This record gives sequence, C-alpha cells and structure tokens, in this order.
Amino acid sequence: MIRRYSDKKVDGNWALKHKYLLWQEIELAVIKVRCERSTFPADVWSKISLILKNCEIDVEEIKRIEEITKHDLNAFIEERKSHLPEELRKYVHFMMTSYDTEEAPFSLMLLDSVKDAVTACDDLILLLWEMAFKFRYTPMLGRTHGQEAKLQSFGLRILHWCRSLDYARYQLQSATTGIRFSKLSGAIGNYQGVTPEEEKEVLKSIGLEPFVGASQIIPRIVHQPLANALVMIVGALTQIAEDVRIAARSGMPIMQEFFDKGQMGSSAMPHKKNTITCENQIGMWRMAKGFADMLRDCILTWEERAIEQSSVERVAWPDLFHVVMQSFKNMTRILEKLQVFPDNMMLEIYYSHGCYASEDAKELLKEFGLIDDAYKIVQLAAAIVHEPCKVLKDYRLAKKDGEEEHKYPMIEEANMLGRCHKDLCQTICEVIYTGALYPIEALGHSQETVDEWNRKLQNIFADPEKLERWHNIFSIAYQLRNEDFIFNTYK
Amino acid sequence: MIRRYSDKKVDGNWALKHKYLLWQEIELAVIKVRCERSTFPADVWSKISLILKNCEIDVEEIKRIEEITKHDLNAFIEERKSHLPEELRKYVHFMMTSYDTEEAPFSLMLLDSVKDAVTACDDLILLLWEMAFKFRYTPMLGRTHGQEAKLQSFGLRILHWCRSLDYARYQLQSATTGIRFSKLSGAIGNYQGVTPEEEKEVLKSIGLEPFVGASQIIPRIVHQPLANALVMIVGALTQIAEDVRIAARSGMPIMQEFFDKGQMGSSAMPHKKNTITCENQIGMWRMAKGFADMLRDCILTWEERAIEQSSVERVAWPDLFHVVMQSFKNMTRILEKLQVFPDNMMLEIYYSHGCYASEDAKELLKEFGLIDDAYKIVQLAAAIVHEPCKVLKDYRLAKKDGEEEHKYPMIEEANMLGRCHKDLCQTICEVIYTGALYPIEALGHSQETVDEWNRKLQNIFADPEKLERWHNIFSIAYQLRNEDFIFNTYK
Amino acid sequence: MIRRYSDKKVDGNWALKHKYLLWQEIELAVIKVRCERSTFPADVWSKISLILKNCEIDVEEIKRIEEITKHDLNAFIEERKSHLPEELRKYVHFMMTSYDTEEAPFSLMLLDSVKDAVTACDDLILLLWEMAFKFRYTPMLGRTHGQEAKLQSFGLRILHWCRSLDYARYQLQSATTGIRFSKLSGAIGNYQGVTPEEEKEVLKSIGLEPFVGASQIIPRIVHQPLANALVMIVGALTQIAEDVRIAARSGMPIMQEFFDKGQMGSSAMPHKKNTITCENQIGMWRMAKGFADMLRDCILTWEERAIEQSSVERVAWPDLFHVVMQSFKNMTRILEKLQVFPDNMMLEIYYSHGCYASEDAKELLKEFGLIDDAYKIVQLAAAIVHEPCKVLKDYRLAKKDGEEEHKYPMIEEANMLGRCHKDLCQTICEVIYTGALYPIEALGHSQETVDEWNRKLQNIFADPEKLERWHNIFSIAYQLRNEDFIFNTYK
Amino acid sequence: MIRRYSDKKVDGNWALKHKYLLWQEIELAVIKVRCERSTFPADVWSKISLILKNCEIDVEEIKRIEEITKHDLNAFIEERKSHLPEELRKYVHFMMTSYDTEEAPFSLMLLDSVKDAVTACDDLILLLWEMAFKFRYTPMLGRTHGQEAKLQSFGLRILHWCRSLDYARYQLQSATTGIRFSKLSGAIGNYQGVTPEEEKEVLKSIGLEPFVGASQIIPRIVHQPLANALVMIVGALTQIAEDVRIAARSGMPIMQEFFDKGQMGSSAMPHKKNTITCENQIGMWRMAKGFADMLRDCILTWEERAIEQSSVERVAWPDLFHVVMQSFKNMTRILEKLQVFPDNMMLEIYYSHGCYASEDAKELLKEFGLIDDAYKIVQLAAAIVHEPCKVLKDYRLAKKDGEEEHKYPMIEEANMLGRCHKDLCQTICEVIYTGALYPIEALGHSQETVDEWNRKLQNIFADPEKLERWHNIFSIAYQLRNEDFIFNTYK
Repeated sequence: MIRRYSDKKVDGNWALKHKYLLWQEIELAVIKVRCERSTFPADVWSKISLILKNCEIDVEEIKRIEEITKHDLNAFIEERKSHLPEELRKYVHFMMTSYDTEEAPFSLMLLDSVKDAVTACDDLILLLWEMAFKFRYTPMLGRTHGQEAKLQSFGLRILHWCRSLDYARYQLQSATTGIRFSKLSGAIGNYQGVTPEEEKEVLKSIGLEPFVGASQIIPRIVHQPLANALVMIVGALTQIAEDVRIAARSGMPIMQEFFDKGQMGSSAMPHKKNTITCENQIGMWRMAKGFADMLRDCILTWEERAIEQSSVERVAWPDLFHVVMQSFKNMTRILEKLQVFPDNMMLEIYYSHGCYASEDAKELLKEFGLIDDAYKIVQLAAAIVHEPCKVLKDYRLAKKDGEEEHKYPMIEEANMLGRCHKDLCQTICEVIYTGALYPIEALGHSQETVDEWNRKLQNIFADPEKLERWHNIFSIAYQLRNEDFIFNTYK
Repeated sequence: MIRRYSDKKVDGNWALKHKYLLWQEIELAVIKVRCERSTFPADVWSKISLILKNCEIDVEEIKRIEEITKHDLNAFIEERKSHLPEELRKYVHFMMTSYDTEEAPFSLMLLDSVKDAVTACDDLILLLWEMAFKFRYTPMLGRTHGQEAKLQSFGLRILHWCRSLDYARYQLQSATTGIRFSKLSGAIGNYQGVTPEEEKEVLKSIGLEPFVGASQIIPRIVHQPLANALVMIVGALTQIAEDVRIAARSGMPIMQEFFDKGQMGSSAMPHKKNTITCENQIGMWRMAKGFADMLRDCILTWEERAIEQSSVERVAWPDLFHVVMQSFKNMTRILEKLQVFPDNMMLEIYYSHGCYASEDAKELLKEFGLIDDAYKIVQLAAAIVHEPCKVLKDYRLAKKDGEEEHKYPMIEEANMLGRCHKDLCQTICEVIYTGALYPIEALGHSQETVDEWNRKLQNIFADPEKLERWHNIFSIAYQLRNEDFIFNTYK
Repeated sequence: MIRRYSDKKVDGNWALKHKYLLWQEIELAVIKVRCERSTFPADVWSKISLILKNCEIDVEEIKRIEEITKHDLNAFIEERKSHLPEELRKYVHFMMTSYDTEEAPFSLMLLDSVKDAVTACDDLILLLWEMAFKFRYTPMLGRTHGQEAKLQSFGLRILHWCRSLDYARYQLQSATTGIRFSKLSGAIGNYQGVTPEEEKEVLKSIGLEPFVGASQIIPRIVHQPLANALVMIVGALTQIAEDVRIAARSGMPIMQEFFDKGQMGSSAMPHKKNTITCENQIGMWRMAKGFADMLRDCILTWEERAIEQSSVERVAWPDLFHVVMQSFKNMTRILEKLQVFPDNMMLEIYYSHGCYASEDAKELLKEFGLIDDAYKIVQLAAAIVHEPCKVLKDYRLAKKDGEEEHKYPMIEEANMLGRCHKDLCQTICEVIYTGALYPIEALGHSQETVDEWNRKLQNIFADPEKLERWHNIFSIAYQLRNEDFIFNTYK
Repeated sequence: MIRRYSDKKVDGNWALKHKYLLWQEIELAVIKVRCERSTFPADVWSKISLILKNCEIDVEEIKRIEEITKHDLNAFIEERKSHLPEELRKYVHFMMTSYDTEEAPFSLMLLDSVKDAVTACDDLILLLWEMAFKFRYTPMLGRTHGQEAKLQSFGLRILHWCRSLDYARYQLQSATTGIRFSKLSGAIGNYQGVTPEEEKEVLKSIGLEPFVGASQIIPRIVHQPLANALVMIVGALTQIAEDVRIAARSGMPIMQEFFDKGQMGSSAMPHKKNTITCENQIGMWRMAKGFADMLRDCILTWEERAIEQSSVERVAWPDLFHVVMQSFKNMTRILEKLQVFPDNMMLEIYYSHGCYASEDAKELLKEFGLIDDAYKIVQLAAAIVHEPCKVLKDYRLAKKDGEEEHKYPMIEEANMLGRCHKDLCQTICEVIYTGALYPIEALGHSQETVDEWNRKLQNIFADPEKLERWHNIFSIAYQLRNEDFIFNTYK
C-alpha cells in the first residue's frame, strides 16, 4: 500500500522481518515439543533456541539465497542453520514441509491485524452510541429516495449507522474463530513428518488448534469469512461517509466534515468546503471489494495445493487491512469533529411544508370520513405547497417577449426569485384545514371535485376538537413519539 | 432475466428456437459451399435445404434427445436428420465438430443484440444533444464534491452526460469488429474437417470472417471488448441517473423524474415523488458489472478448449443485454419527460450568495493589489454569508434555560427559523465591496486583520470603475462567457 | 435463470404468486395482532382473513394496476382490498409502509431457499464421508503443484473436499441467524405506524424477530453473510469439480464422470468422454461470484433507504440460489456415480519411480551419515529415473540427417517410443541403494562427486538391516501410517 | 506494490517526485502559452522556468505543507512559489483549478507505463511466433476437455497463445488513443480560467488533445478501455501459464518450467519441480481483475466531479501496471527457457491408442458402408483399447479373499500393474480392421451385434486398397495436413 494510505501497525505486522520471526517461533516450538516428547535429545531446544534468538535474522541474506533457490522458506532455513553448529542443524525443519512452518504464522498475522481493527471498531461504535444519544432529541427530516419522508431524530440516523457497523463487528468476531486453526501435517496433510500429537502441542503453545483434514495448507475457504467481514466493516463505514456527504451538499448542509484551520478546499475557489474525507472513504470501499475479490478466487487450488494463492495473499491481505484501518481513520476524523447544524435540520423541516405528516394526515382524514379521497387530498395539498413560485411564473411569461435581449438571464432574476421563495410559507396543514385546495394539472382533478373537497374539509374542521387533533399530528413530539423505545432497547 | 427487466428483442434473439434456426443456417451454408466446390453432389444442398426449411424445428424433441445424449448440438442434428431420407443424412454435419456449427451463430446473436443497443444509444445521444442545446442558456450551479462551485448552463451538464455516452458508444462500435470473426476449423482448429477455403466462403455468406488461429473455439478474449463496452454504456447511463437523483432531492429539486398520473410514490406517504427509475438504474449498473465479471472469467480455458464458458455465456450474455436495454428504457423514460425547474436552479444560485464567482473575485482583488490576502478575504466573506442565522442563535441561547420543558423542539421553532432564513440575502459581492467583513472563529483571523482588510476594500471600491468591474464578474453572462465554444465545437 | 439451470423449488419459492401469498400473510398477521390488542374490532381479522384466503390472488390484475401506479405493493393492496366490503378496507395496510409488508416475506423466502440448500448439502456431505471411508485404504499419489508429492489414500483426498464443504456448510448455518430478523417499524423505522409491541408479535408469529434500529428496511449488510456463505458452498463444490476434472485427463485417468448409455462425448469424436459436468460447475462458480458481487454493492444506500437494491435482489438472490442448487446437482451427479480407477492410481505410483518417498529417503540417508549430500543425492536419483528414454534419444540423433524426408514424424516413431517407455522401471529406491547414480547436466554435479556418492551408498547398503529399513520407507503402509488418525478423528 | 512484484520503471513513473515534475511541466507550459499569447508579459516564462527548473522539488516540504492544507496540489504550488520572487508568483497557477494541472500528467504517466507494457508485449509476441514456427512440425495430442482429441503440432498450440496475446495487444493499442486527451478547462469545465485556445496549445506541446466536454476532470470512462486491455493482456498471458502448468503435470510432462541450478522445488521433497512461476501468474490474474474492478467503479462520480476516484487511482493504476509487468516477466522467464519434451508428446500419442483419428475412422467406415454403425463401432473400439488391464482385474478378483492381510496394498502390486500396462498396445486402428471388437458393459451392445460388426469389418478390410486408406488416416502427416495453411497465413 502506498504510504498515503498505509497503517504503521499493519505494515509492521506484515513486514518480512516480522514474518521471519514468527517462522522461527514455529520452528523452535516444533523442536521444543519434540524434545519434550524425547524425539530429539532433551537439550537440543535450549541450545538452538539460545543461538537463534541471539542472532538477528538477516533479511537481505535470505533474499540473496532466495534468488538462487527461488524458495523463500528454504532460504530462511538456510540462513538460520548457518548460525548453528553442524550437529544441531539436522533438528531444524526436520521432516517438515514449508507450509508446516508458514501456515501458523500466517494465521497469527491475520489475528494480530484483526485485533487492531476490532479495537478501532469498538472505539468508533462507542463514539456512535454517544453521538446517537446526544442527538436523540434533535429532529431532522428522514429521507427515503432522497425525498422528504417523515421526521426522525438525528440520533436515530446515527443509530442506523451504528447498528450496521455493530453487525459487521459481530461478523468480524465470528470470522476470527475460523483462523484460529492451523496445520503442521506435512506436504500433503497426512502427518508423514510432524505427528498429530506434535502438531496439537505446537499449535496449542501459540494459541491455535489443528485443522484436521488440511492438505499441505489449510483450505483457503477458511479465510473467506474474515475477508468478507472486513469488507462489511468497510461497507458499514462507507455508508456513514455516503450519508454525511449527501448531508453536506451546499444549499442547506445539515452536517459538514470539520475543516481545519489552514485547510484549503480548492486551489481555485476559496469558498469550498469539500467532503474529501467522505469521498476518500468511497475510494476505500472500491478498493476493499477489489482486494476481497482477489482473495475469494484463492478458494480454488489444485489437488493437495498449488501456490497461486501466495502472491495474492502477500498483497491483498495487508492491503485489505490498510484499507480497513484507513477507513477507521477516515470515519473517526469525520465523526469526532462532525459539524452538525440542527438549525438547518429545522429549516429542512420548515421547507417540507408539513409533508412529513402526510401519512398521519391521510389517516386522520379517513377517520374524519374522507375514506376514498384522503390519499388524493393530501397528495394535492403536497403538490400545492411545493408549486413553483407563481409570481415568478407571471414574470417569466411577461419576459418571453423580450427574450432576445439577453442570452443568459440577469443575476437580478435570481434575487427576485429568492424574494419570491421567501413568500412561500404554506403547509399542507393549513391548506387542508382551511380548504384552500385548487386543481393542479399534473394530478388531473376537476375543479368541481376540488371544490367539493374544500367544502367537506371546511365542514370537518369547523369542529375545534378535530382541528386540535389535526394540529397535533404535525407536532415534532408526536412524530417522534416512539423513538424512545428504540433508544431504550440499547441503553 | 426476470420478465420485469427483460427486453423482447433480446429474448427473441437468444431464444432456443432462434439459435437452432441459426445453427441450421450454418449447416446448410456448409453443405451449399461443399456442393459448389463439388465436394458433395451438386443437388444435395437444394434437396436438404428444401426439406429442412419446410420442416419446423421441434424444440421439445431436441430437449428429449438431449436428455439421453447430454449433448445439445448432437440432439439438434439428430432431430434435423430424422426428416431427411437415408441417403442425404450423411451430408449433414459431415466432418464437423459442434462448435463449427455453434460459433458463427453465437457471433450473429451478439451482433444482433448489439445492433439494438446501438440504435437505442443513438436515439438517446440525439435526445441528449437536443436537450443540451435547448438548455444551453439555462444557468445552474455547477457542483464539485457536492458543493457549489461555479456557474454553468444546464446544457453543459447534459453535454457531460452525452460525451461519456458518446465515448462508450464509440467503444461499443469498435468492439463489434472483434466479433465479426468466427471459425469452422474443427475440433482443435487445424482444419481436419472443413477446409480453410470452405470456412472462408461459409463465413463470408453470413457476413463474418475466419479467425485463423482459433482452437475448437474462438478465444473468449475476443468477446471481452464487447462485454466491457456494454458495461461502459450502462456506466454512462447510470452517471445520468445518479446526477438526476441527486438533483431531485427534496428541498430544492432542480429536476425530477416525470410522475405519471396515477403513479404512487409511497403506499404510506401521499406526497412522495421518488426517483425510482434512477434508483433502478443503479441496480442495473450493479448487475451489469456482475454479468461482465462472469464473462471475463471465461477468458481462461484449458488447452484446445473446455466448456466452462458455455453455461456462463448462456446466462450472462442475454442478461447483460437485457440490463443494457433496460438501462436505455430507464434513461429514455427519465430524460424524455424530465421535469426541469430552471427557477430552482436560479434559487440555488441565489442561495450560493455569490460564491460562484469566488475565483474571479480572488483574482480581481489580487489585481486590485491585495495579492496575499485575496484568498483569505474571499474565504472569510464566503464563511460570513453562509453563517447560520444569528437571530436564531440568540433565541437558542435564550431558550437553554427552559430546555427541560420540551424534550423535542416545537414545530413553531422551525417556522421562526424559516422566517430568519428569509432575512438572509447577503452575497460575497456586497460583503466585500462594502468592507463588511468580521472575524469568524473557525478561520482564526484577528479583529485587527479584518479591520485592515475592510479599510483596504473600501478604498479600492471607492473607484467606480473598479466597482463596475467587480459587479460584472458576478453576472451570469460573464461566468458562462466561454461555453459557446464548447457547444459550437459540437454543432 | 434460464430453464436449463433452474431449480423448481427455487422457482416456486421466488415466484410472484408465492411472494404475494407471503405479503398477504403479513398483512393478515398485522390485522390479527391489532385485533388481539383491541386496536381493531375483535372480528375484523376473521372476516378479512376468510374473504382473502378464499379469493385467489390475481397476479395479472396486480400487474395491470402496477402499470398505472408503478408500485407493486400498492397494486397488490388494491387488488386485495377490491374483494373486501367497504367497511373492512381501511384495516388493510393501515399506517404501514410498503416495506413493512415486504421485508418479512423476503426473509422467509431466503430462509426457505437456504433450507433446500442445507438439505442438499447435508446429503452431499454424507455421501462424501461414505466415499472417504470407502477409499481410505486406496492409495494414490498426492500432488502439489500438479507434481507427484507423496502417497495418500484417495479417501484423504475426498476428506479434504468434505472438510471444505463442511466449513462452508457451517458458515451457511451461521448466516441464517442474521436473516431471522425483520421489521415493521414504518417508513423511516421509528414506529409511526405499527408499534414496537405489534411488530414483535407479528414477527414472532412467523418465526422472526425485530431488527431494532432498522430504517425503512433492514440494512442489507445483514444479508451479506448469506450471500458469502452461498459463494463458499459453490466454491467448495467447484474445488471437487476441478480436482475430478484434472484427475480425468486422458493418458491415465484416475477418475471419470459417469458416462450414461447413449451419452455422446463429441459430435465429431466418438471416443471422447468429456468432463462436461465438472466444467459446467466451473461456470457455476463464475456465476455465483457475479451474483454475490451484485448483492454486495447493495450494502450501500442513501439515508433512510433508496430502492437500488430492489432490482438486484429480484434477480440475484433467486439466481444465486439456482446456481447453488445446480452446483449440488452437478456434484451429486458426478460423485454418486464417480468412476474411480484404483488401478490407474497404482500405475501413477508406479510411474513416480519411488519419488513419493523422497523426503523419507533424504532423511534416512542423513541418518545413515550423508548429512550434507542427502538432498542432492535424492534429487539426482529423481532426475535419473525421470530421464527421457535414452534409446530414443539415440534414435533421434541418428535420424537428424534424414530429417528432410518427412516433415512430420511417422506414427511408428510413437510406437517405438512407447516400447522404450515400457523398458523404464527404475525407482529411486534401486538407483540409490545400488549406487547407480550418474551425473545429469541440469544439476551440474561432477563425475567425481557422483562416483564418491555411489561408493558411500554401496557401503551403507551393504548392511542388510539398513537395506531393510530403506525398503520399508517405500512401502505404502509406511507412507500412509498416520492417516488412521485423521479418519478416526471424524468417525 | 510489494517489492517482490514491483517493476522499477513503473515505480519510477508513478513516484511522487516524477508526478511533481510533470505538474511543473504543465504549469510552465501554461505560462509559456500565456506569454506567447501576450496574456502575460513576454519574459515571465523564461524567468520562472529558469528558477523552477534549477530548484529541485522538495517532496518532504510538500508533504509538510499538505498536512496543514490537506491539499497536495496547493502544497506543491506553495512550495514552488516559495522559490520565486514576489512579482512572479501571481503568474503561477493563475485562474486554474487543481485538475487543470493534474489531468495531463496523469495521462502522461498512463501513456508511459503503457509504452513499457507494449514493448514487453511485442518482445513476447515475437518469441511466441518464433517458437510457433520452430515447433510447427512437432506433433502432440490436441486436447479438449482435457481429453485426447486429435493431433496437432505444438506450434499450433503456441500459435493459439500468440493470437490471443496479439488480440489483447491490439486492444491495448486502441485504448491508448482514449488517453491522449486531457483538459485545462477549469473547475467545472467551462473555461472560466484557461481559454480553449490556451488549452489546445498547452496540450499540443505535450502531445495531447483537449477532451472538449470535460467537467473538472476527464470522465473516467475514458480510462476504462485501458484498464480492460491490461486485464486482457494478463488474461492472455495467464492462459499460457495455465496450459504450461497442465502440461507439466508429472506422469508424462510434455513441458516444464526451466529449473535453475540451485533452485529447490520443495523443502521436504527433493524430486519436486514445481510450476511456481505459472502459479504465480494465476495470482497475477486474480490481482489484475481486482485492480481493474476498483478502477471500473470510478466511472461514476457526482455532478461536475467528486474525488472518490483519486485514492483508487493512486493505488490501482500503478499496481495494475506492476501486475502487468510481473506477468510479462513470468511468462518471458517461462517461455524463453521452456523445457519441451517432444518424446513425451509422442508418448501421449502412443497412449491415445489411435483415438486421435476417431473422427476420420468414423467417416471412413461410413464411406465403406457402415453408415448407422460407424459412430458406435469407433466408440466401442475406443472403449476396448482404454480398458483397464485385464490381467490385473483377475489378480484383484483372486486377491479379494486375502484382503484382511494387508490394509494397504503392497507396492509390488504397483510394479505388477506397471508391467501389465506395458503389455497394452492395441490401437483402434488394429481393433477395427482386424474385427476384434467385443462387447463392453457400459456401452450395452449385445454379443450378436458386435459379432455382426466384426464380420462386416473383416469383409471390408479384406480389400487392400481400403486397408491402405485406413492406415493412412492414422498417419501424423495426414492428421496435420492443413496446418501449413494456418502458419502460412501468418508468415
């Protein structure tokens, strides 16, 4: 992974040197178990262990040998053996195949990288919970299909994010059980070298268990749930980024990424506050999928194994972890200092003209007797309150004659329009209870039908009790009345 | 493909019956060429042809035979032969392998489906051109990172869409050349049955050319550019859908999908006008990629061929074409009746408070002598004009004491906010030329610095000529002055 | 999915009619719970239920209404309501959003399809276990990198297959827990219609639980583990197909797909027994990945939901299940009637010239004192026994002069070569204990070195006890001595 | 990309320093054009150019600035400007947006990396041509479905490889035309800064052309054909690796990767010659697809652009090129020193028992009058010649009683089998012309039928002319008679 998106811990964990240290750990563990079980003389382990641990692994020397042997494990063994006296050499890697040494370290590296991811995940989940509770009474317009739907709290939006991440977190945890397995069962997995008992003890000493029924390697299907869970983690984080990014659109941003002092939005445009971290996160999502796909193809190999998976695993696992950690950094950066604008959330509610309560309105009208027409009445009212400014329409019609004058409109027109926009303040609440409906072409109702509706509505709302109930459904508290249940379930 | 998203022409083109007809066409073409070249007696072709063309292909009978032989081409041959007298049978499929019969029809089916896609594409490109020219003088806010950037015409936005589609269209055209090849060179491609001369003539008779160097099949790499180009087509269309969908977000929609009379947005919420066709298109994009990936894996086979690709091609090619045609239907539906709201485009400009000209403002201030401070001044002005409503801030501060009263805010607060919002009308144009800057915490300038800036600005704009130039850069015509070039280039 | 690869149960499960029945089930369950909780009059449920259950759902009528409303759930509700008397209509879909009705049926459809997959999987795992035990004493050459490695039983190969499938099966089981959740919490998930209590009871009545914290829909991340597990299942099955296919290569096939009476291998070549089912399975693998990728993209949506996922889910879920079921059919077909050739397995061992014991040979030579040279001696012996036929080399050298005569070699040359091949029968066992090594150019040892080795070897094996131990390591029983452990672990 | 698989030229080409140099090149080119067109004073360019070119770009300083501004292009500009006197600074990046500077260098980097790939490709294609011609008269068994099909030359196999690579090479060439475009048309693409004329001249000076109709960036669809072509290149190379790997399977390898002196196959098994480079290539294929998928997702962005594509492009483009170059290295290594075993190719022909001519045999028998039975007779003969050793079958049957003695078979059994195998030498040629058919259970023919066939065959082949024609079809020269056409077409 390029420096810009790489994580130091992941780098350290997947560094050659670290891998070689883990390989040495396995080689020594095998020798130790064999000494304990009297396969080897009792003092062999302490002698070898003392020498090797005190003799730094020479990565460049291994590289040099590998250029000749084209075999990295053999090169490593040769380098290690070169430090031992003749009589001890034979105990190293005795009756073992390369992947007896390599598989367990690979699992350990995966487990270590997962551990960091889990820690970062737990921190972010905690942050999300806190944010959810903090904003549980901050109303905003819930949106489906990008359209104003109903009212909810911003806390609930955050809770959605949190629950998805939580779910991915659970999958990640489950996936680690699969990689707690390893093998030392030889070149084709039938224990011609290391015995089942030795394997069990060696693996136990490093916290793993045998995968009985392995071939030369553990079947790569075993690592799939981990790769998939990591993609899910990135997916859950990217969902947050996507939502923040939409919310930050200029016009009426309800959130924004924090903008550092000194940060520049654009080299050309000084006013820009771009959602670059969110967008970077989208990039991480695209990468996570790609790396996971590479790993998925590694399920298949030939017979007792071929080594197609090796190159992929050297690249895609660490890079997938880099992407995961970068994703956590992105989202922590975004969320910790998230700029939230409750006023603009309220303004969005204002500009929804009461439509957030359209379902309640429809049902209440039904209750008040307008069973067949309720849907249509509310739909018409919604269309009316969203109608483009009539004043301007007239202006435009008038202007048509002079059109040739100016190819482009004058900026003053925007100002005039702005002022028109500010005159709009009708809500479906008012339009309906005052019986102020009028036909709109797109909906195709006749004037008579609409007149009839208006009459009925005026009759209904002459009753003050009905009017009070009507007003009540438009209140924020009423709209969010059942949210406490959701938050209490998770307290 | 399920009925909901399937295209009749694609269905017809990939139907078994149609495939069998094309197989028969090849078998007959081979016989004809062999008659012409005197390999077969001269009258064999006319006899066989007469019988087979008059004898409908029995798809169910072929299926029945295939259940025994597990070989569809053999079953087809058997069914066809059964209608011929004994002495003519031996001329059918003589010294041919299955894929001598199957490859050319496969190419023909691809070519036919491409043809429909190209027609749909050309229609849509034309529509986009027309729309681009229609809206070339309709100003809107160009957005980068979702943020207000600069002014452009809506026509230019459409031109962007069009150019991407145009590019994909060109790739599609190029890709068809690759599939104008086929082969009849036998089981391993070295002409042990059909001769090179026969192959050439047969293919010529159906508009194809030999791919010399084929194995039993044409290498599947040859079809890759087509699959890729189709994905690009879907990608270009999905880009439009994504942009329309963003533009249709409620609040201040600048476009909307057409909403049919009778169409329902939501079963619950009568006011909803959901961008369901755009969103369907996102689904098509996801599917197109998946089908293309299936086909990409078919580049690899074993030696002179194995048949892994067959099942994939039976499913993924027609389904990819269905997805392409559904994409065209989606986007034609959206674009033909696209609801465009130029007033709201103007309102977006109004609410950008002049920031669209921030780069020009910065450069003009530099020209007027504020070389080092121009960026910062404009950035500060932009922050000032976007500040949340001050009136409301005070209200909120005052309210804090009574907070316990209401868990949720009252809806009246939204109304008050709405009214506040309407009082805002400052632009960076005014704030700067009047020297009305004040420090904003996030940007960290001192009061002294800002005062100094204000003084300088007031001095500068005391000069009426400078003021006129200043006003000019905020005009729409100035901002869009170079767009004519772009449109003229494509006239 | 095309008929050729579709599964009847999957088709039935995902048919429109079946989906509508499940929708009705939810609508009725909501009414029932509301009656029980006295939200609705007590007899409403029995009345509505009686009418609707006796009144078949008219799929075509729903389609007709949908063409107008562009909303399938609304169309369904309208069709259902049309059978009810006026006064009962209002109770149907009261204060519910479409996805309150749709989500639970979707989970039920997934669960039903999983159930069939699990049954098929269990059957196949059982079959594999039985085969593994049946062949636990049938020796074969284990291969890594396609190369002869060591001996194992064919039972162990089957056990590898089985263990991977078993692992995938476990993942599938785990994944189903995630889809036992659903929601009826309204258009944005905050219970403005159905209450939390109602939701809980409704879901309980159909075996599901609430996913508290859902938006309009359950986050699609919840379905990811299922899609991933299905891909893993297909992957585990494809691994078997890949191994069978390799094993069936002509020359010395050790297994073959069963070839039905009447089945034809090739229309051109009557001798062909093609591994078409294995290859079809490779195609299924390619498709499974593609469908899963489509579904993975559905993790992301906007805010409280958009409907991009709907089209994908309508296509990719059933098609993924079709692919899974076709995979089970493929592998059941292949495995149930698998042609196993233990004789050819023995022949492969014969033609490995003893190399299967090369590691033991190396270690025994070390024990016998050839510590540094053991690896090289065995490597040289292996090269010697695999040397191309010397007789023919001479023939070829001699022939070179007459080369122009025949462009291509005569078939008699193949016959002569065949006879040569049959004269080869050396094993590394003999070559080494008789000290019959000679230098081979590629390995670069000098004549002196090799002579020295031969001398040493002859000395060593003059000892009859050492010779007996030497012979013993080449026995099959010795090579497979630890396999019982593996089988016993799973008994 | 990790060091193990990275290419030095690709690394150099995508290094930050190199990118900054290219950025500087564009900035200077813009200044130059503006001087030439008198937008800037005439001497500005020579002054700035002299200073900047002599003042090394400080990558670490840029990194330091970027940490504050979070904007790499701005940081670069700031670093560069710092070396200029006050009065020259304003000319740098005047009225330009970041991507006016970045887009063209990006295209140049792609073009440079493509150039290296094309060179490597041309070399490999040449090598393949040479190999194809070298082996054009070396016969081998063509295989379909892994099964012996017909005879071909090894040269033809190589030609298949070559033709696929050639096709991919052609696609790569075509794809470069798309990236010869760039833009300097400002933040939203409508030339508010750089003019169309300036853009044209700047791009011309570096060998590119304007993409009129770009937004802030060139639409990423433009780079798709390049990514796709690179994947095709890797696919074509991987096809070769897959075929070599299959061919190298021990038993009767017909090719092998070259094995260096000193190279070790396995740490455990000294006899192993593993196809590790081929398998590495499979890994490259998996990676290439993953990187291309990441890039494909970048087709979509929002409106005039967002920056999701940036992180992906920083990683996936160079890594895709690394994978491409590693693929060329892999395949060059494999092919340049490919070990080819023509003797084993002949042995494969020998062990096919004449089945390679089964189609000719079938057709000749038809010509000799056995119209309906020809297919069945040849199929039966093929089954007979491939029957497992009868001697051993008897041995096995006899052994059954003593089975308990030995759990595993004795190795001697393999030896006996080997000797049996060597007694087999029948071909379908002989079995048929001598009328030596006998019923085989799997095919289900009655003794009477087969007797009748034998009688007919003996009658037919009593005619010496027919016998000669019969023998002729089994000759290699006859089988490969039309291959010259293929090679001549490409000479």
